[in-house]
Order: sequence, then C-alpha cells, then structure tokens
Amino acid sequence: MATSASRPGFLSRLMPSSGGALFFDLFEQHADRTREAASLLAAMLRGATTDPARQAERVKEVESQGDEITHTVIERLHQTFITPIDRGDIHELISRMDDVLDLIESSSERIWLYEIRKMEPDAVALADVLEKAVEEMGAAIRGLRDLKDRPRLLAHCTEVNRLENEGDALLRRAVAHLFKEGTDPIHVIKWKEIYDYLENAIDRCEDVANVIEGVALEYS
Amino acid sequence: MATSASRPGFLSRLMPSSGGALFFDLFEQHADRTREAASLLAAMLRGATTDPARQAERVKEVESQGDEITHTVIERLHQTFITPIDRGDIHELISRMDDVLDLIESSSERIWLYEIRKMEPDAVALADVLEKAVEEMGAAIRGLRDLKDRPRLLAHCTEVNRLENEGDALLRRAVAHLFKEGTDPIHVIKWKEIYDYLENAIDRCEDVANVIEGVALEYS
Amino acid sequence: MATSASRPGFLSRLMPSSGGALFFDLFEQHADRTREAASLLAAMLRGATTDPARQAERVKEVESQGDEITHTVIERLHQTFITPIDRGDIHELISRMDDVLDLIESSSERIWLYEIRKMEPDAVALADVLEKAVEEMGAAIRGLRDLKDRPRLLAHCTEVNRLENEGDALLRRAVAHLFKEGTDPIHVIKWKEIYDYLENAIDRCEDVANVIEGVALEYS
Repeated sequence: MATSASRPGFLSRLMPSSGGALFFDLFEQHADRTREAASLLAAMLRGATTDPARQAERVKEVESQGDEITHTVIERLHQTFITPIDRGDIHELISRMDDVLDLIESSSERIWLYEIRKMEPDAVALADVLEKAVEEMGAAIRGLRDLKDRPRLLAHCTEVNRLENEGDALLRRAVAHLFKEGTDPIHVIKWKEIYDYLENAIDRCEDVANVIEGVALEYS
Repeated sequence: MATSASRPGFLSRLMPSSGGALFFDLFEQHADRTREAASLLAAMLRGATTDPARQAERVKEVESQGDEITHTVIERLHQTFITPIDRGDIHELISRMDDVLDLIESSSERIWLYEIRKMEPDAVALADVLEKAVEEMGAAIRGLRDLKDRPRLLAHCTEVNRLENEGDALLRRAVAHLFKEGTDPIHVIKWKEIYDYLENAIDRCEDVANVIEGVALEYS
Repeated sequence: MATSASRPGFLSRLMPSSGGALFFDLFEQHADRTREAASLLAAMLRGATTDPARQAERVKEVESQGDEITHTVIERLHQTFITPIDRGDIHELISRMDDVLDLIESSSERIWLYEIRKMEPDAVALADVLEKAVEEMGAAIRGLRDLKDRPRLLAHCTEVNRLENEGDALLRRAVAHLFKEGTDPIHVIKWKEIYDYLENAIDRCEDVANVIEGVALEYS
C-alpha cells in the first residue's frame, strides 16, 4: 500500500526540510556558474585567451546552465507549498543572481562581437573587482543555508557593497580616460558599452547582497 | 429598496466571476493593441510607409490606448477583493505587457526622430521576429482565461522563448554588420539605439511568457 | 519591573502608530534630499556653478544621505510587524524614490566627468521640468501621511504625469537638435547619455506617483 511517504512529489510540496535544502542547493549551483563565468571573462580582459570567439562561447554555455537553474528554482517555487524563506525573496534573489550572470555573458559577447584586440587596462581592473564581488556574493549565498553565522554573512554583504563603490570609482576613471584619449568615436562607443555591462554586473551583485541582507534581518 | 445585487460597485469588488472576466478582457485588449503597434512598426521598417512622422504618431496613439488599459487594470486591481489569479501576477503581467508596447513605440519614434531614410535589412528581420513573438504572446494570454488547454498555452510560451533566441542571434549579426560597415559614427549611434529597443521589446515578450508560464504552473 | 511599554524595540514592532509615523518621516526626509539634489543639478545645467567638480560632489553627498534613509526604511520594514500601508508598497515606493535620486546624481556626475563646459539650452529646460516633477512628487508623498485630502494628493500625481509628458516632448526636441547640429560624434555621445539620465529621472518620478496613486486608491 502506498503511504504518503512513498510519494515524493506530494512530500516535497509539503515538507520544508527537503524543499528548503533544494533551494539552497540551486542557489549555490547558480553562484558557482557565475564564479566560473566571471573568471572566464577576466581571463579574456587580461588578454590571456587566444581565441575570443571560443571563450565567449564557453561563457555562453555557463550562462545557459545558470538559466536552467533559475528556471528550476521558479518552477519549484510555484510547486512548493512551504518555502524555507519568503517566496518573494526567493524569486527576487534568483532573478538578481541571474542578472549578474547575464551581464557577464553580455560583456564577453561584446568583446568578441566588437573584435576587440587590445584590452583597456581600466577594464582589467574592473574585471578584478567583478571577480571579487562575485566571490563575496557566493560566500554570502552559502551563508543563507543555516543563518548560524549571521555576522559573517553580513560581513560578506558589506564587502560586496565596498567593492561596488570601488568599481564605481574605477569606472569613472575608465570613462574619463576613454573620452580623453578617444579620438575614435567608434572605439568610444564599443568600450562605453563594455564598461556599462561590467558596471551593471557589479551593481547587480550589490542587489543580490541587499536581498540576502534583508533575509538575514527578517529571520533574526 | 436597494439590495446588494443592485449595487454593482459592491458586487464587482466581491464576486470573482465578473472581476475575473474583466481582467482577462483587459489583457486581451492590451495584447491586441500591441499586435497593432508591432505591425505598424514592421511596415515602417520594411520601408512600406510614405510618411514616417504620421506612422510614428499612429503607433503613439495605439500605445496611449494601451496605457489606459494598463491604468484600468491597476485601478481595478486595487478595488477588487477577489482576483482570478494572484494579485502580484496580474500586476507583473500587465506591467511587462506595457513594457513591450512602450518599447515598440520608442522604436518607431526613433526611426522618425532620427530621420532614418534607408532601412537596414537586419532591422527588417528583427521586426519580423518581434511581430511573431507578439503574436505568440497574445495567443498565450488568450489561453490564460480558462487554462483548459495548458499544453497549448505552454507551447506558445516556449515559442516566444525560441523567438527570443532567434532575435538574439539576429541582433548579434546586425550589430557586427553595423560596426563593420560603420564608417559614420552618427549612423552607428542611431541604429544601435533602434536595435536596442527592438531587442528589449522581444526580451520583454519573453518576460510576459515567463509570468504566464508561472501562472499556468501555479494553477495546475 | 520592566513592562512591555518600557521596551521600545518590542513596542515599535507591534504598534502601527509609531512605526507608521516613522515610515512617513523617512519618506519625507528622502523627498527633501531629492529636491535638494534636483536643485543643485539644475543650477549646474543653468551654468550657475563655477566649480562643477565640487557641485557634483555635493550632489553625491546628498545622494549618500538618501541611500542611508532608504537603507533604514528597508531595515525597519523587515523589523516591523504591522505597517501603516502595504509592506510591498513601502518597498516599491522607497526603491523608486531612490532611483530618482540616483539618476539625478548620475546626471551631475556625467556633466563633471565629461568636462562639459557649455550647457545645451534644451538641457536647462529638461532640468526645469525635473525640478517641478520632484516638487510635485514631494507634495504627493507628504499627502500620504493621513490621506485626508485625497483629491489634492491625486492632483499632485496627475501633475507629475503631465510633467513627464512635457519632459518627453522636450527630450524628443533635444535629441533631434543634437543630431542636426551634431557634427562631433563625441559631443553627441556625451549629451545623449546626460539626456537619458534626465529623462529616466523624470520617468521614475512618474513611477513614484503611480505607487502613491495605488496606495491612495487601496485605502479609499
């Protein structure tokens, strides 16, 4: 005879424990993809890749994996009865995480598409900040699972905020350089767009940190 | 003597049937406006209009009608006690639908404002994809009313996603062309903006499809 | 002996009166900062400032104060049990208000960063509209506190909408001018971005007005 315990579909909709762990698993898997994409992009901007088209393709593959994870989170959100953290926060969190990964992919795509040969030193510095912000964001996400070490989780969020400010200052300098040296408007147009994507990616890391901070406060 | 039945204001706030039908009516009316706007824009980009200023004005008129419908939905949402689908989903759905129509209007306005005389072939291809995406989005919206044929509704959503990918590939090619031929930076600036609007319009169709998919899953 | 009345933390989480007043206080403080920033920006665009770097820095300081207020609102939102208006509306309202202030700051930063010496007359007109829109938005926000004079509150919201339309028409003219006179693509790139920030700032005022309108309707 089938008991309710033998019906995992039914159970997973009701039991917060299993459903909860699933959401945290998916968040961490998504954060891992973002870290991979950020590191591929940084290599590209450091001029460490010989084949930009292939590198951009690899970032695209990682981004597609992230998309699938996001899709699974949203699907599960609609099917799960009791969620470990607020339903709206889960949706907001994975949406903002997905924005970060999308913007990293857009950056690498433009570098390839615009046939950028010589990288701007300012862009390398920005990519470094993005890589660090993604790292700290991932650490904050891993802290969500049990919320035991809240001060440490909040410290990671604060660090993301600090990195966003650092990125902001870097971007201002980069854009000023661009217009001072920029005798070629086409060069200016291309790099302004790449800088915009990099800046937005870092900004969205801050959005993710803000959502996490909110969750940590709510469950305190 | 006045009975509660003679007070439609009171009734419409409580009865899901009438209020529910109203929301679906408004969604479909909005989708019809978007289809009309997309078709006016496509004609413009195919070079089939003799008076771009007048055509842009017509798109603007259709967009204003869409605005009014959106406003009515939000007003009714605040006044209605029981809604046929989740309150937040209704708000998200009509907001994203309105984004699509806004971006179509922005595209046609720029073509007129920038005094574009010769259309880019890539833009025509993008307008075709947008028209199809708007069509599929409309079909998905019509499927929301009774949710009887869920597989068909989801097939329309999947088709919007496929079209968004097609649009993405087209846009990449269009931008690459632009920079390869682009000896005139002003020409590049103008067309990059128009392409951005077209791409964003298609992206927002995908957002609408995602909301609809979520609703279909929630009520399954 | 400690009574619950002597525990303000506990009380402020339960009592809507004190918590409610606090939210309205914070909204009004934020609106005051935005008005200050808009007026500093307008002075900059009228060419009434001798030191653009210092003026942009002052706008940045005001924006940081706004950030802190926003942060406090969101922190309190997570800690407060009963809110005077819908929790989601509070979040949406302060987020959109913060967008307005951010975009004002971005505008002034670009003017300084791009070393703009000669202001465009169209930009002065746009700044005037932005200043008025911010003023009307602030009046609508002040009306939220008791919702006694709802017609007046709604009139302020309608005025923001009218100003947004006026700004739209101005922007269209400004961009047309830019491309007609624009023999220098770098000049076009710089001013298009500043115009975009100004337009977006006015658009976000309309978003704020829409949230307020929604709240006024909900509590009618």
